[in-house]
Amino acid sequence: MQLGMIGLGRMGADMVRRLTKGGQQCIAYDVQPAAVDRLKQEGVAGASSLDDLVAQLDKPRAVWLMVPAAVVDATLDQLVPLLEPGDIVIDGGNSYYHDDIRRGQQLGARQLHYVDVGTSGGVAGRERGYCLMIGGEADVVKRLEPIFSTLAPGVGAAEPTPGRGAGTSGTNSTSTAEQGFLHCGPQGAGHFVKMVHNGIEYGLMAAYAEGLNVLRHADAGQHAREVDAETSPLRRPELYQYDLNLADIAEVWRRGSVIGSWLLDLIAGSLASDAELKNYTGRVSDSGEGRWTVAAAIDEGVPTPVLSAALFARFSSRGDADFANRVLSAMRHDFGGHAEKPATPTGG
Amino acid sequence: MQLGMIGLGRMGADMVRRLTKGGQQCIAYDVQPAAVDRLKQEGVAGASSLDDLVAQLDKPRAVWLMVPAAVVDATLDQLVPLLEPGDIVIDGGNSYYHDDIRRGQQLGARQLHYVDVGTSGGVAGRERGYCLMIGGEADVVKRLEPIFSTLAPGVGAAEPTPGRGAGTSGTNSTSTAEQGFLHCGPQGAGHFVKMVHNGIEYGLMAAYAEGLNVLRHADAGQHAREVDAETSPLRRPELYQYDLNLADIAEVWRRGSVIGSWLLDLIAGSLASDAELKNYTGRVSDSGEGRWTVAAAIDEGVPTPVLSAALFARFSSRGDADFANRVLSAMRHDFGGHAEKPATPTGG
Amino acid sequence: MQLGMIGLGRMGADMVRRLTKGGQQCIAYDVQPAAVDRLKQEGVAGASSLDDLVAQLDKPRAVWLMVPAAVVDATLDQLVPLLEPGDIVIDGGNSYYHDDIRRGQQLGARQLHYVDVGTSGGVAGRERGYCLMIGGEADVVKRLEPIFSTLAPGVGAAEPTPGRGAGTSGTNSTSTAEQGFLHCGPQGAGHFVKMVHNGIEYGLMAAYAEGLNVLRHADAGQHAREVDAETSPLRRPELYQYDLNLADIAEVWRRGSVIGSWLLDLIAGSLASDAELKNYTGRVSDSGEGRWTVAAAIDEGVPTPVLSAALFARFSSRGDADFANRVLSAMRHDFGGHAEKPATPTGG
Amino acid sequence: MQLGMIGLGRMGADMVRRLTKGGQQCIAYDVQPAAVDRLKQEGVAGASSLDDLVAQLDKPRAVWLMVPAAVVDATLDQLVPLLEPGDIVIDGGNSYYHDDIRRGQQLGARQLHYVDVGTSGGVAGRERGYCLMIGGEADVVKRLEPIFSTLAPGVGAAEPTPGRGAGTSGTNSTSTAEQGFLHCGPQGAGHFVKMVHNGIEYGLMAAYAEGLNVLRHADAGQHAREVDAETSPLRRPELYQYDLNLADIAEVWRRGSVIGSWLLDLIAGSLASDAELKNYTGRVSDSGEGRWTVAAAIDEGVPTPVLSAALFARFSSRGDADFANRVLSAMRHDFGGHAEKPATPTGG
Repeated sequence: MQLGMIGLGRMGADMVRRLTKGGQQCIAYDVQPAAVDRLKQEGVAGASSLDDLVAQLDKPRAVWLMVPAAVVDATLDQLVPLLEPGDIVIDGGNSYYHDDIRRGQQLGARQLHYVDVGTSGGVAGRERGYCLMIGGEADVVKRLEPIFSTLAPGVGAAEPTPGRGAGTSGTNSTSTAEQGFLHCGPQGAGHFVKMVHNGIEYGLMAAYAEGLNVLRHADAGQHAREVDAETSPLRRPELYQYDLNLADIAEVWRRGSVIGSWLLDLIAGSLASDAELKNYTGRVSDSGEGRWTVAAAIDEGVPTPVLSAALFARFSSRGDADFANRVLSAMRHDFGGHAEKPATPTGG
Repeated sequence: MQLGMIGLGRMGADMVRRLTKGGQQCIAYDVQPAAVDRLKQEGVAGASSLDDLVAQLDKPRAVWLMVPAAVVDATLDQLVPLLEPGDIVIDGGNSYYHDDIRRGQQLGARQLHYVDVGTSGGVAGRERGYCLMIGGEADVVKRLEPIFSTLAPGVGAAEPTPGRGAGTSGTNSTSTAEQGFLHCGPQGAGHFVKMVHNGIEYGLMAAYAEGLNVLRHADAGQHAREVDAETSPLRRPELYQYDLNLADIAEVWRRGSVIGSWLLDLIAGSLASDAELKNYTGRVSDSGEGRWTVAAAIDEGVPTPVLSAALFARFSSRGDADFANRVLSAMRHDFGGHAEKPATPTGG
Repeated sequence: MQLGMIGLGRMGADMVRRLTKGGQQCIAYDVQPAAVDRLKQEGVAGASSLDDLVAQLDKPRAVWLMVPAAVVDATLDQLVPLLEPGDIVIDGGNSYYHDDIRRGQQLGARQLHYVDVGTSGGVAGRERGYCLMIGGEADVVKRLEPIFSTLAPGVGAAEPTPGRGAGTSGTNSTSTAEQGFLHCGPQGAGHFVKMVHNGIEYGLMAAYAEGLNVLRHADAGQHAREVDAETSPLRRPELYQYDLNLADIAEVWRRGSVIGSWLLDLIAGSLASDAELKNYTGRVSDSGEGRWTVAAAIDEGVPTPVLSAALFARFSSRGDADFANRVLSAMRHDFGGHAEKPATPTGG
Repeated sequence: MQLGMIGLGRMGADMVRRLTKGGQQCIAYDVQPAAVDRLKQEGVAGASSLDDLVAQLDKPRAVWLMVPAAVVDATLDQLVPLLEPGDIVIDGGNSYYHDDIRRGQQLGARQLHYVDVGTSGGVAGRERGYCLMIGGEADVVKRLEPIFSTLAPGVGAAEPTPGRGAGTSGTNSTSTAEQGFLHCGPQGAGHFVKMVHNGIEYGLMAAYAEGLNVLRHADAGQHAREVDAETSPLRRPELYQYDLNLADIAEVWRRGSVIGSWLLDLIAGSLASDAELKNYTGRVSDSGEGRWTVAAAIDEGVPTPVLSAALFARFSSRGDADFANRVLSAMRHDFGGHAEKPATPTGG
């Protein structure tokens, strides 16, 4: 099947490569001509402009956007006037599903089809395949199945789930979920599911990170604490005398334990090459989905204490709690005469 | 190698089976004679009493306890007088590492060796192998390697971690971690690492559970909310009109996504057979390690907002927040004249 | 000064009474004629319809809405066509500040002035006075000062704050804040500040409620726990043998302690009359501001772990974590063979 | 009544002054002679050593320790051998109640009486009086009432609580709680209640601090955010255009609002003199009680999500989440190719 790809960054270029390798025909475009050239050197057809891209595509066209969420609307403003009724626009980036619903209506008014695809897989996706969560009209999604099934990892990427199959409750025996792509519902449903996927991801990551931090400080009893009214002494230092090898611990957990996962595999790799993670400062970005997940939970009245704690830890890692902390220190000073204690070189 | 196993419950019996199948020689004992008989029918040697068990073991003996944490000390009180200098006692259950340190000293005073082993794997361990986190004296742990390597999943159970190997920083090139067992440090270190492992497990589980709950309520816009001063209306019901198939979503995430894991595999299985999870009421137990992990974090001064939120959600699931909630309702009544609203049948 | 009051519920009627007592002239209206009649019997002028209300007011008019947030727009739809350029509409309820910004623009297009007032004080406000957080055009707010100063508690309601005064940094020496009302900024600023006020309120309430719950369970060591693999035994029951009198404790904290507050005064009263709070079931409502506060924090990138934990505890109190908890129980069953434990009669 | 006071720091010296002013007879001792001299110049009797102190006291003696928790045991080691059966030792500092129980038994074996007193009031206590939470034998506590009632604020320090009085449920009509001191229960009960008091304090403080931080960032829409795949853009900057005066807002909340409190009074004072709190860096200490409160909650199985979030925010303020954050950044790099973003000068 033929597909126009707009946006040849990290994700977009690799998806073109996977599609091409899988027998699909891609025409690639990016605002940076060098990005197009790189793929052309690999034998992929390229376009020099949006007009050129649209001109090269057979009707009805299918165009996939893989651009930062913040520039999707600007791209659509340029692209949509070039399209014709029946054409399909797919947003495979990290758009907020609110925007999908709006865009679906706007494009629908022009008889264009809008499909939102939450795409997980990261830099490993080119080889492993991408997990695709899809929202849009059922027949349109169906039409795009050759694309989805080529991008997806395929049935063999995981063991069969016991209990799935004809006649079991709760499952769709004809679902493509086993292949790694799923039509989740109408427009926005794909990015809604991807949003929550990423919200979960924040929670999982934080669980590992906190646990490893507890292990790292298992030697706390070896560091004397001062005796003053400001500091809580460690009551039983003999209980915290362990020097643990985090790289080995992450590695051992990869086999047979309840907490094995792909994220743990990555952690094991990071710690194997740099047990102190000295290349990182610990300012953790967030790209939106974690925020939106918590906002959705609040709208729904669903408690998400873990997911929000994970989100807020990222905010704090970037210094965004600083003023609140100064308020705390000011109160402590005012009611108890407590002065702030300076940082000690043993921190971290 | 020969091993005496005390405690033939869910875990202990399966470990005997895996050891036997792997060529190790077990002598099995349980306070319930029926449990011993079951294994005898499978060809395993059994003991009728602790004395009998000790008598059947070659010196220096190795005895593995696989009993509830709450009865370890009582078992040791009976077992220890029967042992002789040089014998090894292994506690493979979920003991608190504080107890390991104490027991190590107590047994050491009698020239007995104490080894603590955190064992992960659950009901799947018999087939998959068990992930073993070990604390104790290095030479004693070394002596037990035939047992550990038989119980562990083995190198092939996971892909090699890139970056591990001779000369890389942070890794122990001679580590057994790749086989699925690891000598973590002195007595208590095994259960300390297992404790944190389970603390992480609580966080991971809660992340999935909260996310699925957000997905489940993606249809919130279909349920009208009352208009009164007590209730926050859903401002944009058109954004919450999705009926999502959670079983399919869990399944699709198993392939290619960033949040794939063994726990997700289990969730996919549960939802495939009962999408509503009607067999559960949602009273979630906790068996101690999550509590101890947070307590250790507090001792160390390490923030664990996610792990503690996961722990407290379990407490709340059992009704332990009830009085606090009544206090909140009383305050709302007193300052605002707010009456409590009754439960509505749409909850859950 | 003359003021039309629309909405004579709990808050609106008391505000009319306080204004009248303070020498302001109110004309009162409610969709329920009985509510108007009650105030008429107290000597307040009443209106039989919105038209009647508008007709009775001198120009330029000032009309205060004290209705549920969910019906403000519907009320404005009826009211606005009756008003004339220069008239002022005040929304004193719990509107979302997003709506204030929109309404300010809509009314401004008709040369009407819109003022948003966050009002705190609850049922005690009639006597204590109301704390007013105000957003709108500066000159319009200035014009309404007779109303605000009558509703507010006045300077004498609290001790002077040391450090406030001419020339000190950070303070507005001409601020009305000492009187209990404050022009916070342009339209929406009043409800923004009130929103955060209520967000803080959630956190404060939860802090007291959680602490009292810990005190209530200080007798945990008197209740035996079962010995099984599912339950974490209380390691040192001798440490939890206290039968504490919560009513007395709340009372003693009211004098001299760091945690004295008006909320604590209310708690002391509730516990004095019903130490078990048997009249409450613990289903805690939330009327929106806590949700909006956390949503604003997320937009701003500001961590609010405490305020969100307080919000989510309310959601959980209403059973909204149930499905998540069932997911947890299902996982525990699947990896560990753990069955759910039934509720015990000692809960709560 | 006569009392020996050991420890003339911030708290101890002021308590001596309040007792002296209230007609009680104090003999003051401190390891720093200068501290004793200061009080002697104010007319208080001083002691030059523990022997001297004990010698000056009438039998049965009453000695109050007001020293850092970490040196209580060392002080008792010196003091106890000097005392005689029937003497009373009071620990008025911030001891862990576990230690009270142990010390009570140790002193009891020598027929000495041990009383633990949680003391709240801080630097303001000299004038306001101290809130005293007391554990110990009932008759011994009764004997000390002249001391307690002099230190406490007295009945007039707060309005009577409606509902307290003869015959009402849940209250002790003969309680001293209205005076500001309370015999909470046997040894340890005083510090247990004080521990939870401080745990609540952490939650209250964090609620204010987080809310003020949200207000401070209400101008977020004025700061442009970069458009890239790493950053979540602020969707509606027009909603965050408020420059709020936090000093005035804290001040207005002091009158009539639901969130009025002594802590808020302090915040208003801090912000009045330094709206930016430039004198603080935001490294917030914790002196133990918050940790112990959460640990007790965990032992009891009581959820304290708010109190623990407040505690962990303090840990994070001191950099103790750094390694966890580096783990997060490493994962983001490995699955998504995300590089850390450097700190921007707009932070804080």
